Amino acid sequence: MSGPYLSAADPTAVTLSGGHLTIVVVVAAVALLALAVAGGLVREVLAAGQGTERMQNIAKAVQEGAAAYLTRQFRTLVLFVVLIPFLLLLLPADTTGVAIGRSLFFVVGALFSALTGFMGMWLAVRGNVRVAAAARQSGEKAAMRIAFRTGGVAGMFTVGLGLLGAAVVVLIYKGDAPAVLEGFGFGAALLAMFMRVGGGIFTKAADVGADLVGKVEKGIPEDDPRNAATIADNVGDNVGDCAGMAADLFESYAVMLVASLILGKIAFGTEGLVFPLIVPMVGVITAIIGIFTTSPRSGDRSGMTAINRGFFISAAISAVLVAVAAYLYLPGSFAELTDVSPAIAALDSDPRLIAIGAVLIGLVLASAIQILTGYFTETHRRPVREIGESSLTGPATVILSGISVGLESAVYSALLIGGAVYGAFLLGFGNVTVALFAVALAGTGLLTTVGVIVSMDTFGPVSDNAQGIAEMSGDVEGEGARVLTNLDAVGNTTKAITKGIAIATAVLAATALFGSFRTAVETELGRASESVREALGSFSTFSLSVDSPNTLVGLVVGAAVVFLFSGLAIMAVGRAAGRVVLEVRDQFRRKPGIMDGTEQPEYGRVVDICTRDSLRELATPGLLAVLTPIAVGFALGYAPLGAYLAGAIATGTLMAVFLANSGGAWDNAKKLVEDGHHGGKGSEAHSATIIGDTVGDPFKDTAGPAINPLIKVMNLVALLIAPAVVANADNVALRIGITVVAVGIVVGAIVFSKRQSANVAPAGNSRQERTREPVGG
Amino acid sequence: MSGPYLSAADPTAVTLSGGHLTIVVVVAAVALLALAVAGGLVREVLAAGQGTERMQNIAKAVQEGAAAYLTRQFRTLVLFVVLIPFLLLLLPADTTGVAIGRSLFFVVGALFSALTGFMGMWLAVRGNVRVAAAARQSGEKAAMRIAFRTGGVAGMFTVGLGLLGAAVVVLIYKGDAPAVLEGFGFGAALLAMFMRVGGGIFTKAADVGADLVGKVEKGIPEDDPRNAATIADNVGDNVGDCAGMAADLFESYAVMLVASLILGKIAFGTEGLVFPLIVPMVGVITAIIGIFTTSPRSGDRSGMTAINRGFFISAAISAVLVAVAAYLYLPGSFAELTDVSPAIAALDSDPRLIAIGAVLIGLVLASAIQILTGYFTETHRRPVREIGESSLTGPATVILSGISVGLESAVYSALLIGGAVYGAFLLGFGNVTVALFAVALAGTGLLTTVGVIVSMDTFGPVSDNAQGIAEMSGDVEGEGARVLTNLDAVGNTTKAITKGIAIATAVLAATALFGSFRTAVETELGRASESVREALGSFSTFSLSVDSPNTLVGLVVGAAVVFLFSGLAIMAVGRAAGRVVLEVRDQFRRKPGIMDGTEQPEYGRVVDICTRDSLRELATPGLLAVLTPIAVGFALGYAPLGAYLAGAIATGTLMAVFLANSGGAWDNAKKLVEDGHHGGKGSEAHSATIIGDTVGDPFKDTAGPAINPLIKVMNLVALLIAPAVVANADNVALRIGITVVAVGIVVGAIVFSKRQSANVAPAGNSRQERTREPVGG
Repeated sequence: MSGPYLSAADPTAVTLSGGHLTIVVVVAAVALLALAVAGGLVREVLAAGQGTERMQNIAKAVQEGAAAYLTRQFRTLVLFVVLIPFLLLLLPADTTGVAIGRSLFFVVGALFSALTGFMGMWLAVRGNVRVAAAARQSGEKAAMRIAFRTGGVAGMFTVGLGLLGAAVVVLIYKGDAPAVLEGFGFGAALLAMFMRVGGGIFTKAADVGADLVGKVEKGIPEDDPRNAATIADNVGDNVGDCAGMAADLFESYAVMLVASLILGKIAFGTEGLVFPLIVPMVGVITAIIGIFTTSPRSGDRSGMTAINRGFFISAAISAVLVAVAAYLYLPGSFAELTDVSPAIAALDSDPRLIAIGAVLIGLVLASAIQILTGYFTETHRRPVREIGESSLTGPATVILSGISVGLESAVYSALLIGGAVYGAFLLGFGNVTVALFAVALAGTGLLTTVGVIVSMDTFGPVSDNAQGIAEMSGDVEGEGARVLTNLDAVGNTTKAITKGIAIATAVLAATALFGSFRTAVETELGRASESVREALGSFSTFSLSVDSPNTLVGLVVGAAVVFLFSGLAIMAVGRAAGRVVLEVRDQFRRKPGIMDGTEQPEYGRVVDICTRDSLRELATPGLLAVLTPIAVGFALGYAPLGAYLAGAIATGTLMAVFLANSGGAWDNAKKLVEDGHHGGKGSEAHSATIIGDTVGDPFKDTAGPAINPLIKVMNLVALLIAPAVVANADNVALRIGITVVAVGIVVGAIVFSKRQSANVAPAGNSRQERTREPVGG
Repeated sequence: MSGPYLSAADPTAVTLSGGHLTIVVVVAAVALLALAVAGGLVREVLAAGQGTERMQNIAKAVQEGAAAYLTRQFRTLVLFVVLIPFLLLLLPADTTGVAIGRSLFFVVGALFSALTGFMGMWLAVRGNVRVAAAARQSGEKAAMRIAFRTGGVAGMFTVGLGLLGAAVVVLIYKGDAPAVLEGFGFGAALLAMFMRVGGGIFTKAADVGADLVGKVEKGIPEDDPRNAATIADNVGDNVGDCAGMAADLFESYAVMLVASLILGKIAFGTEGLVFPLIVPMVGVITAIIGIFTTSPRSGDRSGMTAINRGFFISAAISAVLVAVAAYLYLPGSFAELTDVSPAIAALDSDPRLIAIGAVLIGLVLASAIQILTGYFTETHRRPVREIGESSLTGPATVILSGISVGLESAVYSALLIGGAVYGAFLLGFGNVTVALFAVALAGTGLLTTVGVIVSMDTFGPVSDNAQGIAEMSGDVEGEGARVLTNLDAVGNTTKAITKGIAIATAVLAATALFGSFRTAVETELGRASESVREALGSFSTFSLSVDSPNTLVGLVVGAAVVFLFSGLAIMAVGRAAGRVVLEVRDQFRRKPGIMDGTEQPEYGRVVDICTRDSLRELATPGLLAVLTPIAVGFALGYAPLGAYLAGAIATGTLMAVFLANSGGAWDNAKKLVEDGHHGGKGSEAHSATIIGDTVGDPFKDTAGPAINPLIKVMNLVALLIAPAVVANADNVALRIGITVVAVGIVVGAIVFSKRQSANVAPAGNSRQERTREPVGG
């Protein structure tokens, strides 16, 4: 790593002349096309029939609850979206224009993230009842078509807005685009993290609360209208699995683009600033093809066959089109690239082959994760079957086998992702800059499938909700009900796959962003005063070497944050679910007529509880994500901060997959028993798997998926503060001040959220009496 | 980090002249004194009364089972102890004498580790019945005295053999001692890991199996003589919690000494080779005082008060004596140290203050862990109380709250340990060599308490067994039974604390050993041929910087191994427990008279199953620990190998504390309910906490504690192979060959152990019938 590591030609020298400019404009046009397609899909979905009046009423309640939640959430988050741009202005930037652009595009990133989530959800709460209606009247094919097209809207918004934002930044800022894109990515990631955490707490508080009283205490089935938490449960599917997920994947898409554009400029010059836009543009085109080709054929064994066909067709077309684009656009040697440093120009290999190889690695990784996740979570494969068998010896063995399956599968996923990173790294043939760009390009390759992935994933909550509406209304029976159950099962599998893909993008983006971190630190080290160099000691030349104890401590803290974040998220669900349980029990007691159907439960009260609690509970993990890197950077220095990121990436990847897969496997083990194995519904084995599923709920839908945006947020915060951390190495008073404030706020938030729980659920006998009474009574 | 990083004067130049030599001889004499004290304690314990004939018969069965297990385990492990010394001879060493010494002391380390475990257990299975007899006849004070002195034998063996081994190596090899000590530490760590894993699987297979059939299916109490698994359960306490734990702490002690001697020589010259022996010598003296002062006084609230008094008295005395020793032995400036490099001699600070500061950090860390672990696992503190409350909403919420408590407590422990490392690092005042030695010295400070810690911990299984013998014989009632229950509760707390201390030593030792890793790699890089340098590219100057993607991949793999190891260990317990369940059910069916006491169960069959299964199951995690670093090193290079260690340390620390504390908290939440809270024994809340406790069993007693020796083994393997990894960087064929063999064996072992499970528990209906039948019948 001798010489300048990531050194671009003078950024302002980058001009997008002729052909390059045209291509970026075409990219922007394709992004707009994606939004237009989304509009067409919306019209098609809304045109479908909405079923009986009862079904429409239920759907309306869900719509209102979801809209109310999202409105309140956005209102809560406005503070961040207004405050942070000003804080960003305090951080150093090359020019004032870049500083303002970074703050401005932070807001754009946040708004786009919110819009993607909102639109995906807006249509999902309208698509659900139409899917139920189609299942009732027209059968599987029509129902699946509506469900998948509803998902398609979220998919098109994700890729359309992501690509549009990136292309516009490149058009306006050209060589300065990378710095502005950091703001765009940060806005997208921060908002997505809040939506993931908030939505995740909402959905699982409602779900767990509904199950604990309904299934466990009262013995009534899921989605039974007598349960006051059912509407909240259905709202939760939309605000968590749908809005949260769409925002999360939008963020993955945006941050991956940001990482590849930052590195592209340095590794491939002007071409490197354009090619990372071409790859996802290809992805948009193939996603449109994928969405329209995904319709069940008569020979298909299940809905999953059709979805797999859509996925693999788009992946294959992407591979071919990217290869063609690389040969048409990129030159055959590094010397022919525009505006690259002499060191890069002297490299003796073919940029086209590197680009194609990297994109292929990404596509292969996406397919491998799809297959691996399927193996560990599908109902009839061995891991889930073994968890099902363990239900014969009770809930404890179900929990233990699920945890060991989750731990093991996390390892294989991490090794796959690690293998992909290493493969892309080898494509750099010893040049670290090119290697990092290859890692980033592999990420964009992975993301060419994102349009289809989001469509697949939104399929899940829509089908789940359709089943809920059918069950509650009682208006869908026989063949129609069977169709909806099948669709729901398919949705479960697609959800697990999406989470695997999402965490893979986190690792690839974070790995690539280390390049920018290094550049930022090295630039600042070059300018450092004598007193700063003295304060840095042996770290005045760049090193994140983990043999130094301070760096190792940073690594441990990074890994610890993932544990703390997961623990806090799971605890938050437990607290909120506890309040839902108290409310539902209370309603059963106050209105004894609910059980025989003579009285209506008050659904709105549970929705309110979930809304209020999830918004309060999201603050602590959110503050943790933003403030911990700041504390580590200013207290310990840039090297521990870099290692902190590495620790968070390594542990975060494993924890995210562990939580997602153990949760998914428990869910499907329950379905296995419900299908009649090991005693079937109502058996001891069934109770055991229900307990497993309940444990898995906050694993797979709250803590697990939020780790992906967590990693991105921490990475981007670190990247943004890195120059300030280096420049103030000798300013001990400032460093202590910032550290104390950051740590103080985090500790305060943790203590406050615990005290909240104490207020709601006071310890000791009084609470015991109060909560036990309704069960007995 | 300019200039030579860890450069010693010519090692052969180190002579132990006059005073230094005398001190090492005194250290060896004190080590022998510890063994003599152990002999005295053995005599005292054996002289106590053994109670009724029934009690003696039960004790005899436990003794035989434990001895049989340990004999078979040692026979299995002989292969390793014979094979590995020859493999070690293949690795490069400075002189032939050192190479032979390293192999020889590998065997000594392994034998000492085995002997410590064996002796601790040998007396524990004799002490248990005497504790029960004393409780029956003479009351709490006498019972506790015997229990604690039984533990004292294990404590004295741990410190005596550890210190003796290290002192002898220093006496014989002088300046070459560090290289030989690597072998000693490796032997100790490897054997301890096998004993931890094997014993851990045995004890929890028996415990979980006994509970699942006894408590859950048949509704008979713990330790009921009608349960065929009770003897195995009691044997398990001894081979796991007692022999495994003692070997583990011996290993911690030995490896910590190794690390500090390696670094001491470089940082403090000859004095650095002697001072790390003086600190634990002080520890031996204070441990003897601690053991003899630990006897309950009339004013004590519980047995824990007496134990805490013993602990804090020894810690305080240690601090004072170490300070005195430092002032008497060490000079007041670096220039006055013997045989140090000019760079060290030029340092402007006081070695005495650094040494005292480091030891104090270790002592404070030990006390802080003691307090923190107590907070998270003691019965009447808030975390356990909250888990207890969550039992009102069923097992799922018990599991979720236990997991979040565990995750959170792991973070605080990791931050404490990280804080101690950072504090010690700051003592180096910018000199990394001195900083690393300070980290190692903090570790030896921590370990001055180990004599008392082991005594405390052995207390746990001895009291547990005493209660088991009392319960099974039915000969101890009233006051005597109450005394034993109290002692058992104290044992639960001490066990959790020991695990916290053990993992802290792993982090400190591993951090310090990075210094040796760096020296080993840098020495080899200095000798590297042109083709090796070319193959290493930018890594031909030492760097473990995690911004490079290949290094980051190593880090991810290291973190992944911890997940895989934990998953495999938990899975192994599940499989073995399943076989115990089948056997016990089978005995109840074949001998219907067992339930009404007219027929005797065949205890020996369950002991046999546990023995066979745990020995088979320990192979896979063992191979994983030894072979993965080899695969990573040869496949990816030294930098990913170094990062691999860092990833394993960070994730391993968190995972180990998470598993230990969630398990401990569940156990005590169950005790809380059994004390009459939330409905008391037999309530729904009780069932829920029993499920939590069962999930926690393999967490806290199998997977969690084995992570400590796992980290050490991987560290020492990496250290031993590092020169070969660098020297063969250009030999692609050899690298591929070694990688393929290592990965092949690990994958083969994993697949084989899964197939085993399939043979024993075939999927599908046949097994369902077979296992369900006895439950119904």
